[in-house]
Formats: sequence, structure tokens, C-alpha cells
Amino acid sequence: MTTNTSATRYDITGIGNAIVDIIGRCDDGYLASVGAAKGSMRLVDADDIAKIYAGMGPAVEISGGSAANTLAGVASFGGRGGFIGKVADDEFGRIFSHDIRSIGVRFTATPVSGSLPTSRSLILVTPDGERTMNTFLGISTQFDNALLDRELIRDSAILYLEGYLFDRAEAKSAFQEAAAEAKRAGRKVALTLSDAFCVDRHRAEFLAFIRNGVDIVFANESEIKSLYETSSYDDAAKRARNDIKLAVLTRSAKGSHIFSAGEDIQIAAEPIAQVVDTTGAGDLYAAGFLFGISQGLSLETSGKLASMAAAEVISHIGARPAVPLDRLAREKGLLS
Amino acid sequence: MTTNTSATRYDITGIGNAIVDIIGRCDDGYLASVGAAKGSMRLVDADDIAKIYAGMGPAVEISGGSAANTLAGVASFGGRGGFIGKVADDEFGRIFSHDIRSIGVRFTATPVSGSLPTSRSLILVTPDGERTMNTFLGISTQFDNALLDRELIRDSAILYLEGYLFDRAEAKSAFQEAAAEAKRAGRKVALTLSDAFCVDRHRAEFLAFIRNGVDIVFANESEIKSLYETSSYDDAAKRARNDIKLAVLTRSAKGSHIFSAGEDIQIAAEPIAQVVDTTGAGDLYAAGFLFGISQGLSLETSGKLASMAAAEVISHIGARPAVPLDRLAREKGLLS
Repeated sequence: MTTNTSATRYDITGIGNAIVDIIGRCDDGYLASVGAAKGSMRLVDADDIAKIYAGMGPAVEISGGSAANTLAGVASFGGRGGFIGKVADDEFGRIFSHDIRSIGVRFTATPVSGSLPTSRSLILVTPDGERTMNTFLGISTQFDNALLDRELIRDSAILYLEGYLFDRAEAKSAFQEAAAEAKRAGRKVALTLSDAFCVDRHRAEFLAFIRNGVDIVFANESEIKSLYETSSYDDAAKRARNDIKLAVLTRSAKGSHIFSAGEDIQIAAEPIAQVVDTTGAGDLYAAGFLFGISQGLSLETSGKLASMAAAEVISHIGARPAVPLDRLAREKGLLS
Repeated sequence: MTTNTSATRYDITGIGNAIVDIIGRCDDGYLASVGAAKGSMRLVDADDIAKIYAGMGPAVEISGGSAANTLAGVASFGGRGGFIGKVADDEFGRIFSHDIRSIGVRFTATPVSGSLPTSRSLILVTPDGERTMNTFLGISTQFDNALLDRELIRDSAILYLEGYLFDRAEAKSAFQEAAAEAKRAGRKVALTLSDAFCVDRHRAEFLAFIRNGVDIVFANESEIKSLYETSSYDDAAKRARNDIKLAVLTRSAKGSHIFSAGEDIQIAAEPIAQVVDTTGAGDLYAAGFLFGISQGLSLETSGKLASMAAAEVISHIGARPAVPLDRLAREKGLLS
């Protein structure tokens, strides 16, 4: 499946929660003491987040958000991107808006004044580099249809949707409307399952949504197993073949597995010296892959770009690229 | 000069601006276009900071502030520290307060509600790793005597003062009162000159303050030259001997030069693979040195701890240590 983007002004537009990450290190004991399951994302309220923050070590603040990270990656590859999400008229809203616009991603949301703050995620990084997220949605709980920039959606070759939004009914409805808008304009729709617990909370709706016209599904191993309620990866992949036009399954150190009706490709994980912080690994994988296919590159090359981008982001703190990914890809001979 | 801290609850207390750094990369052309002198710190107003921020690339937010960074370094070495500075009741104030308290530094300031925000500094890092700072003081312009935690000052073996505070009359007066309080309690007073332009703005007052009882002065080469209005380092050092009991002069790649009435020591700069971001180099140098002498270590060992801490902080983005400095010092055989 190649995607010709010459007819659109944007390669990829993402829809997701506009989040600023607060990233700090902690030991496994602290994770346990706050009741967080390692590697997961959970939604917390204002009281919880204050409590977890008070007990954690010094942190850094960096723009995040799953789909937003993906679009930051797309821009870093030189792709033309847009992002749709909701920010409040506060310091974190200004940080998020600045960071995504400053890399050339179209982001037109008007900050909302009121009592709810911009979303933030307390990200606890354990000594093994694994990240565990505690997200306070704040203003993102008001994500609804009114936020959809329909012109941007119609003008983007691929619409990329973040599964985390399934946690809110209004956001889910906006999601479906955005997908319908993209389909009517002849665009592709891509979805990431985001988190195994999130899939578990909304399994039937995820499946119905996928079967109803999603073109590309991104999932990691635990998410795809959760979707099909199986403990066997092979079983999950087999069932995915019946539902998913183009499946892109990431398996951490085992690399990734990409398949459609005509192709079945394994991509090795890029070796890296040290995993510093896994935050954004899946997001940047999606960035490389979506950028690749938006440029008409093969699934294999797109998978290699994906793998490279994921390796870059886990080698440092923060979920956005620290170096220009287009330069990195040229150095590795993946882009000319 | 060794400093016995057994009689105090704190080794070092710092007084300075409580700042959150907004750190991003830019090229030399952008620096020139916003009229910033590379390597300097300048004060900007709310309009300027908005303009410079809008034109710069994606950034990360990390707690900063010169003396606050030094105290973060002291804590990372295992020292007992306190910090006095002013924050507003806003997001950046919460970030600053969290980060400094979470590493065990005593910080008791009550956040101030009102129209002025917590101080922030836009730090532009050029490809050579040099940092150029554009600081909007906000609530720190209200730094005054009322903020002084006199008990903390009396209970700290060393009071460490950030020269940047000379830029505000009320802060300067608080400064002098804090130094007097420390002297009355038999404590040592240390001062960093902070910035060559700052020295230029307040030369006579800096000199009077130093001659009036400062025990330790930190300065880099351009600051000490500015203090004595000379272009010769040797000339500046010679004149410093007449005014300064213990001078600690840093000279970037040339290492550092420490001298008092009885000693004259040269410390080599610690070799590092790549200078990523010089932000905090001087602050962390001061941290290592002050921690060393507060533990009764020799000037030479204190200088080596200083050099090591400076090398650590310039090897990554942000002005606070990314790894525990006590561990690093033990690995290098500088602490047992």
C-alpha cells in the first residue's frame, strides 16, 4: 500500500491529547507505592497527580502526547504535518503550542480559559528505562467535535488517531467523525491502540472501529494480545489478518512485524547502547512508518525508518527527537 | 581555609533568583537577530521574552537559577543545603519548588499570588554548546529583606550569594543584610560575580561588597577582568589578591585557578567528549568547590570536585546534575 500525497497540503494529521510530560526518575519501589503498573498509562485526578508529584524526584518538563509526539517525528523527517488537540490558556498550554508549532506542525487550536488546566502526564522512569505514565487529562476531557479542523483533515493524506481518546465518550465520537471526514475525502485512516489497559477498557469499540474502515493499525505486542484476548502473539497476529488492512506490530527488542494482504515483513530492532527512557518509542515508530509510506517508500524502508526513530527517542529523556531525523536517516542510507 | 560545619545544620545556603529555564537550540544567526551577546545573561521584559520564544525552536523546561543550581549540585554531592528565593503561585513556581525540595534542599518560601509570574530564562544554545540567557525576572523583582530566612542563614556554615541579584536595589540590600547576618553568626560568605555585563553594571558596589567581608569569590575569566577593567587575566588575578581572601577563578578549557594568602593552585579542566550545553557550568563548579571545603577537604580536592561537577553538567541539556555527583566522585576516587 503506497500513499500518494501529492494531492494534499499535508502528509499526516494527528488527533490526540495535547500533553506536557513531567519526567522524573524513580525506583521500582516508588512505582509500587503509588499503585502504578510498570509500562502502563493510567488516568489520574488532580489529587492523585499532586500526591505522586510530591513524592517523586526532580523532573524535566517536555511537550508530549502520543499523536503529538508522532507528528513531531514526522516534522523532524521533513514531513508536512498537522495536529488537533485541546489546550488551556495557561503555561503548559503555551509550552505545548510553542513546541509543536516551532517544528512546523500546523496547530490552530484556540487555548481555552477556565478552571481546567492543560493536560499533563507524570512519567516515572525506572532504572531499566521503562516509563510509567500517570495522566491528568484536565482540559482534554472537553475534547469534542467542535475542535475538529475539517479542512486540515481533508487536506491530509493520512489521518492518525490516538487510541487514548477512547477513554472519553465525546472524544470517541469526535474521533469517529474525523475518520468519516477523512474517508469521504478519500484519505487513509491510521489508528494506534495506545495502551493494553486502554484496549481492555474499550475492546469491542476498538474492534468495531477498526473493522469499519481503519487502513493502518499500530499496536505493540501487549496491545494486540489484549485486543484479541489471547496470550499468544501468533494467535493475535493471525486474527489481526482478518480485521486489519495493514497491521504494524511492534515487539520491543524483537523488532516489528508489518503485514497486509500481500506482504509480511519482519524488521529487526535497531541496536542501541543504552535504553535511557522508553517514553515515545511507539509514537516515534509510528512517525517513521507514516512518514515513509506518505513518501511512497516501501513497507520495509518505512519500517526501518520507524525502527530508527524509535531507537533515537529511547536513547534520551523525553518523547520527541533530539536530533533531526531526516539527517539521521540520510546518514544511515534510508533516505536520499 | 577549611570550614568546619559540624556546628551547623546546613553546609551551604544560597540566595538567588528562583528561575525555570526554557532551553532550546538555535543558530548564531538567531542570536544576532534578537540582539543577544553570545554567552551573556541579559534581563528582558515580558514582550521581549514572548518575541524571542516565538522565534526559537522546541524547548525543554528545567528548573534553573544560578545559586539554585549550585545548591542542587551540593545536594547531589550529599551536602545539606538551603535556598532562599521568590516564586509566584503558578505552574513554574510549583515546578521550581518541587525540584529543589525533592532533592532535599530546604526551601520555605511561600508562593506569591498576583500579576507577576515566576522568573523564567529563555536559554538559547548554539551549535558550539554555548548558552545565551534572556531572563524575565517577574516575581523575583520583588525580592527583598522580608524573604530572608534568618534562622537558615545563621544555621549554615556558608552563605552563597548570586551576583545577578545586584541588578535590583531591594535585592542588593537584602543581600547585604543576609551577609551581615551570616557574619554575626560566625559564618563564611561566598559570592559569585555571575556575569561580566552584570559586573560592568555594578562594579563599584561589587568591589565594596567584596572588600567588606566576602570570604570566597567565584568568577570566570571575563568577570574578573570586568571587575578590574583589564584585558589581562594575570593583571586581574594580581589585583584580586589584594581584595579577595579566597579567589576561585574559572577559565573554561584552561581549567581553574584557586588562591588565598597561603596557597596558589591550578586545576586542570576535566576532559569531556562533547560540550552539549554550557548552562550551569559555573554554578556546578561552585557546588563542587563549596561542598568540598564544607567537608574540610583541601582546596585542591575541592577544585577537582568542582571541575568534575562542571564537566558533568555541560555534557547534557540543563543546568542541574543528571547523575548523582557523590557516586561520580567516588568512582573517580575524589570522595571515599
